[in-house]
Amino acid sequence: MPSWNPSQPGSHTTGPRPAEALTSPRKEKDQVEILSGVFEGKTTGTPISLIIRNRDVRSGDYDALAEIYRPGHADRTTQQKYGIRDWRGGGRSSARETAGRVAAGAVARQFLALEGISVKACTVALGGIRARSMDWDEIDRNPLFCPDAESARAMEERIREVKAAGDSLGGIVEILAQGCPPGLGEPVFDKLDARLASALMSIGAVKGVEIGEGFAAADLLGSENNDPVTQGGYAANHAGGILGGISTGMDIVARVAVKPIPSISKPQQTVTRDGTPTTIEIKGRHDISAIPRIVPVCEAMVLLVLADFMLHPFPVRLRTMA
Amino acid sequence: MPSWNPSQPGSHTTGPRPAEALTSPRKEKDQVEILSGVFEGKTTGTPISLIIRNRDVRSGDYDALAEIYRPGHADRTTQQKYGIRDWRGGGRSSARETAGRVAAGAVARQFLALEGISVKACTVALGGIRARSMDWDEIDRNPLFCPDAESARAMEERIREVKAAGDSLGGIVEILAQGCPPGLGEPVFDKLDARLASALMSIGAVKGVEIGEGFAAADLLGSENNDPVTQGGYAANHAGGILGGISTGMDIVARVAVKPIPSISKPQQTVTRDGTPTTIEIKGRHDISAIPRIVPVCEAMVLLVLADFMLHPFPVRLRTMA
Amino acid sequence: MPSWNPSQPGSHTTGPRPAEALTSPRKEKDQVEILSGVFEGKTTGTPISLIIRNRDVRSGDYDALAEIYRPGHADRTTQQKYGIRDWRGGGRSSARETAGRVAAGAVARQFLALEGISVKACTVALGGIRARSMDWDEIDRNPLFCPDAESARAMEERIREVKAAGDSLGGIVEILAQGCPPGLGEPVFDKLDARLASALMSIGAVKGVEIGEGFAAADLLGSENNDPVTQGGYAANHAGGILGGISTGMDIVARVAVKPIPSISKPQQTVTRDGTPTTIEIKGRHDISAIPRIVPVCEAMVLLVLADFMLHPFPVRLRTMA
Amino acid sequence: MPSWNPSQPGSHTTGPRPAEALTSPRKEKDQVEILSGVFEGKTTGTPISLIIRNRDVRSGDYDALAEIYRPGHADRTTQQKYGIRDWRGGGRSSARETAGRVAAGAVARQFLALEGISVKACTVALGGIRARSMDWDEIDRNPLFCPDAESARAMEERIREVKAAGDSLGGIVEILAQGCPPGLGEPVFDKLDARLASALMSIGAVKGVEIGEGFAAADLLGSENNDPVTQGGYAANHAGGILGGISTGMDIVARVAVKPIPSISKPQQTVTRDGTPTTIEIKGRHDISAIPRIVPVCEAMVLLVLADFMLHPFPVRLRTMA
Repeated sequence: MPSWNPSQPGSHTTGPRPAEALTSPRKEKDQVEILSGVFEGKTTGTPISLIIRNRDVRSGDYDALAEIYRPGHADRTTQQKYGIRDWRGGGRSSARETAGRVAAGAVARQFLALEGISVKACTVALGGIRARSMDWDEIDRNPLFCPDAESARAMEERIREVKAAGDSLGGIVEILAQGCPPGLGEPVFDKLDARLASALMSIGAVKGVEIGEGFAAADLLGSENNDPVTQGGYAANHAGGILGGISTGMDIVARVAVKPIPSISKPQQTVTRDGTPTTIEIKGRHDISAIPRIVPVCEAMVLLVLADFMLHPFPVRLRTMA
Repeated sequence: MPSWNPSQPGSHTTGPRPAEALTSPRKEKDQVEILSGVFEGKTTGTPISLIIRNRDVRSGDYDALAEIYRPGHADRTTQQKYGIRDWRGGGRSSARETAGRVAAGAVARQFLALEGISVKACTVALGGIRARSMDWDEIDRNPLFCPDAESARAMEERIREVKAAGDSLGGIVEILAQGCPPGLGEPVFDKLDARLASALMSIGAVKGVEIGEGFAAADLLGSENNDPVTQGGYAANHAGGILGGISTGMDIVARVAVKPIPSISKPQQTVTRDGTPTTIEIKGRHDISAIPRIVPVCEAMVLLVLADFMLHPFPVRLRTMA
Repeated sequence: MPSWNPSQPGSHTTGPRPAEALTSPRKEKDQVEILSGVFEGKTTGTPISLIIRNRDVRSGDYDALAEIYRPGHADRTTQQKYGIRDWRGGGRSSARETAGRVAAGAVARQFLALEGISVKACTVALGGIRARSMDWDEIDRNPLFCPDAESARAMEERIREVKAAGDSLGGIVEILAQGCPPGLGEPVFDKLDARLASALMSIGAVKGVEIGEGFAAADLLGSENNDPVTQGGYAANHAGGILGGISTGMDIVARVAVKPIPSISKPQQTVTRDGTPTTIEIKGRHDISAIPRIVPVCEAMVLLVLADFMLHPFPVRLRTMA
Repeated sequence: MPSWNPSQPGSHTTGPRPAEALTSPRKEKDQVEILSGVFEGKTTGTPISLIIRNRDVRSGDYDALAEIYRPGHADRTTQQKYGIRDWRGGGRSSARETAGRVAAGAVARQFLALEGISVKACTVALGGIRARSMDWDEIDRNPLFCPDAESARAMEERIREVKAAGDSLGGIVEILAQGCPPGLGEPVFDKLDARLASALMSIGAVKGVEIGEGFAAADLLGSENNDPVTQGGYAANHAGGILGGISTGMDIVARVAVKPIPSISKPQQTVTRDGTPTTIEIKGRHDISAIPRIVPVCEAMVLLVLADFMLHPFPVRLRTMA
């Protein structure tokens, strides 16, 4: 049975793995078994079904969670919605679910590469520290995928401080898609930016999505924000590669806001399943920030959205005609 | 044939209409004809089909646009995608399309009212000016739906200045949904926040969406951002009413970034359809900002998403059980 | 505003219109208004929205139906499902709804013609009388679209008899699609035959669908039913052009069973809305058989299914490559 | 890890298993592993993912099929559609795929049982022999699930004859769903009968689907085919439990035509992948008829369709109200 390891979904993530100190000591081998869709090294058109089993599970870590709701998690909303909850490791809402997204994104990446499309992402803010330069070559040289070496060092320092304090951090990830032809996205019901917003917002911990200038556009004048049209493209890219829900052919640029990991070891106020007030201190193997682990997940979601649109009939035709 | 006017989609918009000076002189009567779905004053389960015809059309205003691409619009992306473009009034990408969204939202509002759910929206930033207070009673007292009377006056002043300069402005709209039960939204593929992000990002001119703290969450500590769980709910609402993609029962809070209207009378660099560089000065009847017209559109999109989820079987059941 | 008349959706239906005596005296002009999607004589990629208003309505004919359920109609199931019913003309379940299907099919027909695909249908049985020959040239020469002139005359005679008796008739329609490339249809979840079955069964009055040999295949041996494979195709077409849910490149052949029109003037046992037993004699302007009116509806549904599949990316690509 | 055996999907199939002589000697253990969706013996709302691995595989049996197209199979259509084909065991089009349908149907059966809905199926024709009585108690007493003991014996005899001749047989399966409330199905786009037709036609080897009287309705008078309406229901069930696409509350009755198994050991004319004419004699472990193995598959598809509709909001509500 063929297998491959999708944990290096792209060239830019072949650098050093996140340092032990920056991520949780939980280590999944992420061995993928291909159940269907590949024959003699090629896809057949059959759905590609991949299975990644959880190996490094210590469910005992979670026993205490059966009867208590963790603040900032989906524990209570799940119980309220379904009247039943698999509390082991966060159940359906476990961030472990993103392994499937990354694996699927790795397939999409290979397909898009055939069309000259690539996607990469980096950390532009973490714990209140902003990257002040955008050197994409830098992101493989530090464990946080940060495009600014100096900021990366400050971010690492901030993680250590906050870890010691039993707290956690949020940040901002920027995603860049290059090589997209103009014409991806539907003008009303399946706008490219709407689909990207949905895909990125669906990642646990993401609380905001913006395209191009995003929230900064709210403060610009039209004459500043409009990208002058040139014969071959545009003289600027405030639009982030999308106008009217359709790709312009310029780089697609998106950013997502990542909330701080809700699992913290500081005591927090909560209730048990029967409503009794109590406090909780979460001691398991948790990350201090969803960054850097979330970076390849963001890439994967953009890869999947772009692959979907590249399979729509008209862009394919345009492509053929070009 | 019954008809009604959806331009007052909710109680909070019964105040003064946007002042002439702040919006374009184009005035659509927005008479709606109900084609199907209503019988003897009640919905029948048949799709409700509404038609709103454009009456105040001066296509002559757009004749010049057949051969030239307006910066910041979907003119060129549409041409590239389809190889053909209905250039009258922006065609498929005309903001006029939002009339249908508002009309549909007005139907959703009536349905949601039966369940005790309401949605309202306001202008929290315009042209770089922030609302500094959140008095929802104030929004009907000024033409910008701004919750801060003093900021509203500054915003109006800013619009007049920029109009005189032949330029345009962006802003930020906040949407508040109240009365949602816990349990709306699916845990992975149809998260409530993902669906809201898609719905709001699909509005022309929107370049960013955030829920609860949104991008501000990126700078918070976990201990600051987590909402303490109480017996009846939560002691805070940084989450904006959604955890793990599922409603918590708290107010749902979203904000969208609105880019400045791309149609400006200042000269801009562009090209004609055959690629010849030229300049364009757009002189038609255009707004200076998508705000305030976009405010009811934002409400409508949130109403539609919530109505969809309220029609899912399990929340309905929960509702019945509660 | 452009308009066109779709009542002649294809060449083979340009013959004599159904004789007055064979169909109801209700005559709709079927004037279509194109609301969107067409610009300067071409489609733009925008959804094509067509409206056909009911003009020849005599709702008074239906007043009596508000309080009584017609046997064989959806009156009671609709009431039970929704708790409300628009009883005028059968409401949502009126056969008048098929006008929209035929209009949409006329658009699909034009698209498919560009790919060399055509669809036609004929009456192979009516009132227990079978067509004994299949001369497609004959179908335009009789009002029943029957491919056998002699059987057509017997069918017409049968209709007159049954009309006099206040009763109604069913029949069988055969649909033939020619020019389809091999490769349309998905192997499991969207099989071409499954989609055709769904589309055809969704027509009111249709109670059965079969492809190729259909129910006759149940009695054949494998050696009789298998189509020998030849270099250029197949030496027979028992499969009706579909194997494994995918088109073979041979003619696609489907047949549908049409039940007798449930509206009859003979007295029938039924109940009123409050459950009181009563009898009903339906005296309105009703057809004696859904045939021949249903023939273009069957064509339309097959046209729509084929157009959908021709818009899938891979068949288009195959087409381009061929 | 919990597991269960879905090969007995319902009480009526607990009788004798198909005799060795009547089915192929290929025996899958069909051990199911539940990957997700069940926790402490209950469903959680998470998708229930089941995996059934093929154990009794002798791919060597299929080596010869890499370069030759079997008549009546999807070998060539698959190659034409995708340009690549996994030829082992029929690949994507293998009847082995129905194991997943039966497993899913077993889950649906448990859900529907809670609502008082049950589904069973039987063989009403095989190899040209019709069941002449409908004794549902009989179907567990013979290996063909035939409701007529005498016909069952004749069918068994026919299978043996045809097996000796190296040929294969088709037949007809009838499916009966009992306990459905009125109101399932949508009036135009998701009619219950259209969805059943799609689901049943999607089973490999099925070439026809009919509801209630089905093709026989084509020969009936309206006065014969209409079911008189009574206070509690209907005095007959020619409609097969569906009117206007909506369930009536009567038994739902469907029948499917099953073509003879295309794999036969008699020599057949075909071509190799490069188009060279040749003959093929298929010697593997093949059934003589898709019956009886297809009977639980038909049940499963009806179970799945009904479960989908029972999850729609309004019928659930009606159910609650009843």
